[in-house]
Amino acid sequence: MDSSHIDRRSRLRQQRGDSPLLRLPFRQLRNPMKPVEILDEEQIEQLHQAAMQILENTGIAMMDEETLAIWENAGARVDKNNQRVRMDRGLVMEAVAKAPASFTWRARNPKLSNFVGENSITLAPHGGMVYVSDLDNGRRRGTLKEYENLVRLSQACNVIHYNGGELVALNDVDSSIRHLTRLYTDFLLTDKALIEAAHGRVIPLDSFNMAKIVFGDDISSTPVLGGVINVSSPLRYDGRMLGGLLTYARYGQVNIITPFILAGAMSPVTMAAALAQQNAEVLAGIALTQLANPGAPVIYGGFTTNVDMKSGSPAFGTPEGAWALLVGAQLARRYKLPYRGSGGLNSAKTPDAQAAYESLWTMWPAMLAHTNFILHSAGWLEGGMTVSLEKYVIDAEMLAMFYHFMAGFEINDENLALDSIDEVGPGGHHFGTAHTMERFSTAFYQPTLGDNLGYEVWESAGSWDAARRANAVWKEILANYEPPALDAGIQEELEAYVARRTKELAGKNLYE
Amino acid sequence: MDSSHIDRRSRLRQQRGDSPLLRLPFRQLRNPMKPVEILDEEQIEQLHQAAMQILENTGIAMMDEETLAIWENAGARVDKNNQRVRMDRGLVMEAVAKAPASFTWRARNPKLSNFVGENSITLAPHGGMVYVSDLDNGRRRGTLKEYENLVRLSQACNVIHYNGGELVALNDVDSSIRHLTRLYTDFLLTDKALIEAAHGRVIPLDSFNMAKIVFGDDISSTPVLGGVINVSSPLRYDGRMLGGLLTYARYGQVNIITPFILAGAMSPVTMAAALAQQNAEVLAGIALTQLANPGAPVIYGGFTTNVDMKSGSPAFGTPEGAWALLVGAQLARRYKLPYRGSGGLNSAKTPDAQAAYESLWTMWPAMLAHTNFILHSAGWLEGGMTVSLEKYVIDAEMLAMFYHFMAGFEINDENLALDSIDEVGPGGHHFGTAHTMERFSTAFYQPTLGDNLGYEVWESAGSWDAARRANAVWKEILANYEPPALDAGIQEELEAYVARRTKELAGKNLYE
Repeated sequence: MDSSHIDRRSRLRQQRGDSPLLRLPFRQLRNPMKPVEILDEEQIEQLHQAAMQILENTGIAMMDEETLAIWENAGARVDKNNQRVRMDRGLVMEAVAKAPASFTWRARNPKLSNFVGENSITLAPHGGMVYVSDLDNGRRRGTLKEYENLVRLSQACNVIHYNGGELVALNDVDSSIRHLTRLYTDFLLTDKALIEAAHGRVIPLDSFNMAKIVFGDDISSTPVLGGVINVSSPLRYDGRMLGGLLTYARYGQVNIITPFILAGAMSPVTMAAALAQQNAEVLAGIALTQLANPGAPVIYGGFTTNVDMKSGSPAFGTPEGAWALLVGAQLARRYKLPYRGSGGLNSAKTPDAQAAYESLWTMWPAMLAHTNFILHSAGWLEGGMTVSLEKYVIDAEMLAMFYHFMAGFEINDENLALDSIDEVGPGGHHFGTAHTMERFSTAFYQPTLGDNLGYEVWESAGSWDAARRANAVWKEILANYEPPALDAGIQEELEAYVARRTKELAGKNLYE
Repeated sequence: MDSSHIDRRSRLRQQRGDSPLLRLPFRQLRNPMKPVEILDEEQIEQLHQAAMQILENTGIAMMDEETLAIWENAGARVDKNNQRVRMDRGLVMEAVAKAPASFTWRARNPKLSNFVGENSITLAPHGGMVYVSDLDNGRRRGTLKEYENLVRLSQACNVIHYNGGELVALNDVDSSIRHLTRLYTDFLLTDKALIEAAHGRVIPLDSFNMAKIVFGDDISSTPVLGGVINVSSPLRYDGRMLGGLLTYARYGQVNIITPFILAGAMSPVTMAAALAQQNAEVLAGIALTQLANPGAPVIYGGFTTNVDMKSGSPAFGTPEGAWALLVGAQLARRYKLPYRGSGGLNSAKTPDAQAAYESLWTMWPAMLAHTNFILHSAGWLEGGMTVSLEKYVIDAEMLAMFYHFMAGFEINDENLALDSIDEVGPGGHHFGTAHTMERFSTAFYQPTLGDNLGYEVWESAGSWDAARRANAVWKEILANYEPPALDAGIQEELEAYVARRTKELAGKNLYE
C-alpha cells in the first residue's frame, strides 16, 4: 500500500469537494416499476397457511412475563412451563390488520423525514458492526471516535435516509451507557431520522426521554425513533427484544420485526420452510405490537439467507437470499405492511469484486421488491462484522445510481429531437449540436467512484482500483461534513440528562 | 503480487478440479418472471412512431451498391448521390413482420444447440477485444495462442452457451486469414454454437464453406453461425457490414443487428432520442435481411449507453445503459423479434469492485429484460479493450448464480417441513435433523469464487481478494478442459480448405 500516494490524492479531493455524490440533494426514492414477484398468489397462500399452522400448533417461545400475560389476556394458549405461546390465526390476523400500511418517520430536520410504505424505498446505513476498517489503518475495534465519523458520513451522504443506531460498537464506552452516548452523539452530529437499539425497557425509555428533549413531548403521534427486533430463530423471542418491542410499541415508535434465519441452521434447509417459519415469526411479533398498542408503526422484516454448505458460515448475496428478499416483500404486501430488507450484504473481507457483486445480489432484489426500509445499504463488509469506509463509498455510488435509474426519462417531442437527428444526419456526430450543448452538463448519471479513463491515463495516475479511489472519496465526504444546528439549551438539557443517567446506570445490567 | 503464492494454490486447484462451476451441466436458461418494463405502451408507441419518422424523412445511409438496388426494387426512395435510403413505414414493417420470432442456433454437438426467443436467455462470451490480461502476465496484445485458451475456457464453462468469434484479436496472424484461423481453431477446440465475424462477402462465404464441411451441406434450414452487424451510428451502415448482412441472410445464418450508440456522441444526448434512433437503425437492418431472404433468422440488438460527461469516453454499466437494455427488449417484443443485449460491460481497468458492480448494472437489467442473446457475458474489461481471465471467472460465477436464481424453489408439504419445524421447536437448531441431512449437500447455490470463511482464516490463507482467487479458478478450468471429438476426415478437409484459401487470400483486402 502506497499510503503517501493515497494521502496526496485524497487531500486534493478534500479541498475540491467536487464529487457528484456530494451534490446530490436529499430526497425520497420511489420505485415506479411494478414489484418483481417470483411466487404466484397460490404459493404466497401456501406460505401464509403454513405460518398459521406453525403459530397454532408449534407456537412461539416468548421469554418475558409481561408478554405472556398479554397473550393470555388476548386469548392465546400460553404454556408457562416453557413460555410457549400458541395463537389461533383469527387472533393473529385480527391484530396484524390493525397495523398501519404506511407512516412517516420523523427526522429532527422536518425536510429529512421519511415516508415508509407503498413504493417508497428508504435507505439506512450499516448496523451492528464490531470492527471498522479502512485502507489507511486496517481493521480495528470500533470506538466512540469511529462512531462519530460514521455518523458524520451518513449525515453528509444525501443518498442515505437514516442515521445512528449501532453503526459500530462503542468498545471504549461502558456498556451501561452506550445508548446514551450514541443518541447524544446523534443529536449533535446529524438531523436525519434516527435508528436506536430497541433492547429491553431501560434503553428505549432513555431514548424516548432524550428524543422528547429534542422533539418536544409529543413523539407518539408520529414516530421519531425505530429499532430492529430480532427474533432468536427458530421460533423464539428473548426477553431483551420483547421488552424493547413492547416499549417501542407503547410509545408509538417503529418496531422492525426481523427474524434472523439462516436456512439449514435456524430453520429447515428448504427455502419454503425457511420462509414459512420467517412468516410465522414476524406475524407473531407484529400481532404483539398491535396488542400492546393498536395502530403502532411496525415493519415486516426479513433477513433470511442460507448457510454456506462447506463452512457452515452464513452466506450473503446468494440466490437464496435474493428469493427471500422478493418473497418477503410479497408476504408483507399480502398483509398490507411496510417491508424491511437489507442491501449491501456480503461475506467479503476486503472491498473487492466479491464485496461488490454480493452486495448487488442483495441490493437489486431489495430494490425490485419495493423494500420500504433497506438496512445495511452502505458500509457492510465481512458478514456484518466490519464496516469498511471504502465499502461505504462503493455502496453510496450504487444507491446514487438507483436514484437516477428509478427517476426514469421522459419521452416528448423536445427530447426525441428528430430535428437534431435529421440535421446531423448519417455519419455525423452530436457532440456540438445546440440540443446537446444545452443539456450536456446534466444529461447523464455522473459517477463519483467509477473511472472511465483510458488505460494509459489510469496507469500513469497510479493504477488505483475502486477501493483506493473510494478511500479518497470518504475523506472528501468527511471534509465536507457540516454539523446541523442544535439549540444550545437543548444541548445542555441533553448533557444534563446523560450526566444524570450515567451515574444512575453505572455498573447496571440494562436487561435484568 | 506474490505470484509463487498464486502458483501454489492454483496448482492445488488444478489437481482437484472441484469447483462447483465445473460440475454445472450445460442447459438452457429461461427467465420465469415477467419481463421488467419501464415504459408503458404509449411510450413504446412514441419510440416506434419516432423511428418511422426518422426512416421516412431522414433515412439511413447504406454504403453498398447491391443494398441500394434491393431497396430501390422494394420501393424505397434511394438517393444515389449520398447513398441515402428513405423507406416508408409500410415497407419496413411488412418486411420486419417476416422475421421469425424465435429459432434454434445449432451447435456441432446437437446437445449444445440453443433456442433463441421467448423467455430464453442465451449467453455468449466477450468479443472484439484487442488485449488479454491476467494477474500473472499483465496486459498484452492478443495472439492465436491466447485465442485458443479463450476458446478452451468457453468450452469448459457450461454456463456459457456460445463460443468463437473475435474473443481477442489474432495480432500474430495475417489479417487476410484470421477468420480461417479462428474458425478452424473453433472446430478443433469447441463443439458449442459459434459466433463469427459477419464482415463483407468473403469472410462469411469462407465461414459457410467450412461450416458445411463440418455440418454437411444443409446449413441454411437451421443456422449454425451468427455474427454481429454493427450500425455505424448515426444512421449509417458501411459496406463491410452490409456485405456481411446480405450474405448471412441469404445463407439463413443469424444476423445480430446492433447500433453502437453512445448518447451524446452518436445520437442526441437525450435517451428518448438515442432509443428512437436505435430503433430506426435496427429496423432498417432487419427489414433488409428480410428483403434479402424472407424468414432469415435475425436478432434485434441494442448497445446503447452514454458518454462520460467528464472525459467524453464511453460509460458502461450506467443507469442510462440499464434503461436502454430494458427499453430495447420492450421494443423487440413489440416487433416479435428475439433481442440481443450485453452483460458484463464496464470501464474498469482491473477486476475490482468497479468491474463487478458495473457488470451487474448490465447483467441484472439484461436478465430482467428477457434478453435472448447476451453478448459479453464473461470476460469484458476496460470498455471492451481487454479480456481479463480473472474477470471471466467473476462473470461466470454471476451467470451460475442467475441459473440458480431463475430455477426458483418449490413449495409443497415435504419442503415446508412443518413436522421438522415442530420437532426442533423454539430455540433449537436444524443442523442435524433428518430433513436437513437428506438435502444438505445439494440444497443451496455453491459458490466457486465467493469466500465465506472467517476473517482470521482468510487472512492466514494469504488475504486473497476475489481477483486472486479467480486467477486460480481459470487455471483450474483450463486444466479440466477436454477437446470435443472431431472426425479425422473432417479435420483434414478443414485443413485443406484453410491451406488453399490461405494461398488465395494472401495480401488481399477482404472488404473491397
